[in-house]
Amino acid sequence: MNENRLSSFKELKARFGDRAILETDEYADYATDASDIVVKADAIIFPESESELVEIVSFCREGRVPIIFRGAGTGYTGGAIPVPGGLVLSLERLKKLEIDPEKKLAYCGPGIITIELMREAERHSLFYPPDPASYEESTLGGNVAECAGGLHCKKYGVTKDYIIGLRAVTLHGELLETGIYSTGELFDLSSILIGSEGLLAAVTEIAVRLIDLPEFGPTILAAFANPEDAARTVSQVTREGIIPSVMEYMDGDAVLCSNAYEKSIEIDGAEAILLFETTGPGRFDEADRIEKVCRRHNTIHLKRENSRDESERLWKIRRNLSKAVKEAAGRKISEDVCVPPSRLPELVGFVSQLDNKYPVRINSYGHAGDGNLHVNFLAETMEEAEMAVINEGIRRLFDKTLELGGTLTGEHGIGLTKKEFLNLEFDEPTISHMKKIKSAFDPDNLLNPGKMFL
Amino acid sequence: MNENRLSSFKELKARFGDRAILETDEYADYATDASDIVVKADAIIFPESESELVEIVSFCREGRVPIIFRGAGTGYTGGAIPVPGGLVLSLERLKKLEIDPEKKLAYCGPGIITIELMREAERHSLFYPPDPASYEESTLGGNVAECAGGLHCKKYGVTKDYIIGLRAVTLHGELLETGIYSTGELFDLSSILIGSEGLLAAVTEIAVRLIDLPEFGPTILAAFANPEDAARTVSQVTREGIIPSVMEYMDGDAVLCSNAYEKSIEIDGAEAILLFETTGPGRFDEADRIEKVCRRHNTIHLKRENSRDESERLWKIRRNLSKAVKEAAGRKISEDVCVPPSRLPELVGFVSQLDNKYPVRINSYGHAGDGNLHVNFLAETMEEAEMAVINEGIRRLFDKTLELGGTLTGEHGIGLTKKEFLNLEFDEPTISHMKKIKSAFDPDNLLNPGKMFL
Repeated sequence: MNENRLSSFKELKARFGDRAILETDEYADYATDASDIVVKADAIIFPESESELVEIVSFCREGRVPIIFRGAGTGYTGGAIPVPGGLVLSLERLKKLEIDPEKKLAYCGPGIITIELMREAERHSLFYPPDPASYEESTLGGNVAECAGGLHCKKYGVTKDYIIGLRAVTLHGELLETGIYSTGELFDLSSILIGSEGLLAAVTEIAVRLIDLPEFGPTILAAFANPEDAARTVSQVTREGIIPSVMEYMDGDAVLCSNAYEKSIEIDGAEAILLFETTGPGRFDEADRIEKVCRRHNTIHLKRENSRDESERLWKIRRNLSKAVKEAAGRKISEDVCVPPSRLPELVGFVSQLDNKYPVRINSYGHAGDGNLHVNFLAETMEEAEMAVINEGIRRLFDKTLELGGTLTGEHGIGLTKKEFLNLEFDEPTISHMKKIKSAFDPDNLLNPGKMFL
Repeated sequence: MNENRLSSFKELKARFGDRAILETDEYADYATDASDIVVKADAIIFPESESELVEIVSFCREGRVPIIFRGAGTGYTGGAIPVPGGLVLSLERLKKLEIDPEKKLAYCGPGIITIELMREAERHSLFYPPDPASYEESTLGGNVAECAGGLHCKKYGVTKDYIIGLRAVTLHGELLETGIYSTGELFDLSSILIGSEGLLAAVTEIAVRLIDLPEFGPTILAAFANPEDAARTVSQVTREGIIPSVMEYMDGDAVLCSNAYEKSIEIDGAEAILLFETTGPGRFDEADRIEKVCRRHNTIHLKRENSRDESERLWKIRRNLSKAVKEAAGRKISEDVCVPPSRLPELVGFVSQLDNKYPVRINSYGHAGDGNLHVNFLAETMEEAEMAVINEGIRRLFDKTLELGGTLTGEHGIGLTKKEFLNLEFDEPTISHMKKIKSAFDPDNLLNPGKMFL
């Protein structure tokens, strides 16, 4: 870090005291995210109001200091990883949370944890559905930046389906007010901020719509000796017009990891597990029909829990997965692909084959209803030869995904780890217009530089 | 028109033959839209494919010829009005219409008329709800450019709620593919194209989602001696949690105009009429409850039709309104304001007062469920003194609308006629970022120049 930059950080320290961190060794969490990439932060700052944020951003623009906005750091693609010489600007202390039960709206600071909003909404018999697996840690600001999906998204939609307005601070310290924060109805700036991964502006307030809390129905766990049978069950459930509120897939090795992390449910010979939840007036009928489809597809174990408390026991195996798989490996390289649900059996079959052939442990799980699969490569040595094998595996996974009409980022964004594949997902004119919008907002490339675009 | 420009147009004529019009006198319709502003077009062109459109746009960019994209010209704010020296590029011949009944999707050219899509969807028992009053003429491309609302929008949402992907040609002749036309899930270019009023790109294909055709319930017509009673009925229906599929308001003078145009329903002493339609499983129960609310608010005439054919008779009075009011005046200056539904009685009361005081005929109608009111000033002489009175009335209407927490453009956009009021609806940073996006797409300001921004 050069002297100028250090002196800039010292100025911030003088102004913000112990909310500006220059000795970041004790803040090792802020050097990484779920991508496991580590870049030590040179400085971290914790504004506690929108006006402080405006002050910091304006200061950085004048001093040409790169800014990396950060929520909880639960993202998988390195979007929140520090940039050398840059300032990590944590939004976690912006914790406004106001619910308007009559209008079924919530006004949230970006630092609100997903589960905090869900719990507060539930007190008013309301529901905020988009629940990334990390919903006990992920912030709403991060969810907006990544347009996060989640377990309930097949039935209820993803983050962007619930955002009805944003307040955001631009690099120039200007306040943008979109959606319900503005009175206008022209082309909508909300939706370019949603999914913009910290490249355009800092979101400082999020207006979300809530829905009536649905009646939660039974949870069903079904085990299969063959992963493709599980995937075909998913396809058939969809084909029959059943929309479970949750339909999660995990393969046998993922189940092993979860049980090694915390013993929950062990089923002999289970090479795949599906977890279903149903909601709403048809929930019992739908649960019955799901069970029938599972039986027609050779389920080897079927468990149904009708109470929400009992269901929790079944959910544990899923909730622990991300941490469990991480703990099982020296390093977990996690890819997040998505195919049309009807092609899921082919994708699952491909991953099994890959696993059999490759000298690296692979497992997978995901939001089956969306055709979304998190495929994890579990590195042990992390030596060059092993990483080369993994990179070759990833490339083949991506080729297969695209061949099946799928996409390389189900819900985890581009960040650092996917940027070399951006051109597989978007054509050149679309990427060039995204870059034009980036330049319009941030001509000096100070906001999260080096992310998303090569 | 200078020589260079004329020679450009002649080149287009040589290439496109009788689909390039240089003698535009016989195309008087293309000189205007529902704003009644008239600017003779210097040239008009009718591409018949996306590739022809790319060719024309690229040609214009090289020759720096302004382009005005045009659908059916049913807009109220002058968005489709020609620009001197510019080329009017009509999208009306791009008429692709493919329905995928299984996925409940339609793929439409921008030239498809709204009713054509609705009818084709209905053949598959599907429904495309956003129905601007001009739905028998308005094109889907125009609806996207203006993010059009409509009679069914309170219950079913506006145009943007149904768009799931766009193909669009930029000024550089590049093809943008957004939403389902792309495989990516980053920040979404669809939504800056929706409502962009021809300033950013030409939409060449629109993917829309369709919903199951609902069961259409009774139509109810209720007349009131006092417009505020009608508006209070609207507020109360909303407060009781009833969401009619249609809830239309029209004042007594609007009803007079409609009957003068084509006699449909005349009710002595009716100073306001409400029209309701209900859909779905609760349709009969909701209709009963609506009738009760009308009675509690002093309705002087209540008519209910249960069959869709009989209902048509009641709808006629509403459907004819736009043309009828236009025919009643030398010139109709139509404003399109929107307030929170709970404030509609105040807005309606204000318009009645304005009407009593002003020496110009005023009437109003609109999508009451959304708090949307089209307020029409009927000019007779169109002389300076009269127009000054009208402009003063418009200014007072706008002030009142904003005082009630409303917006100046319910569904008709900004175009030419509202651009001086843009800063009443958006704060300066938001406008400046809209302009930055405009510059990013169109640095030379060739696409619909002079519209939206001052």
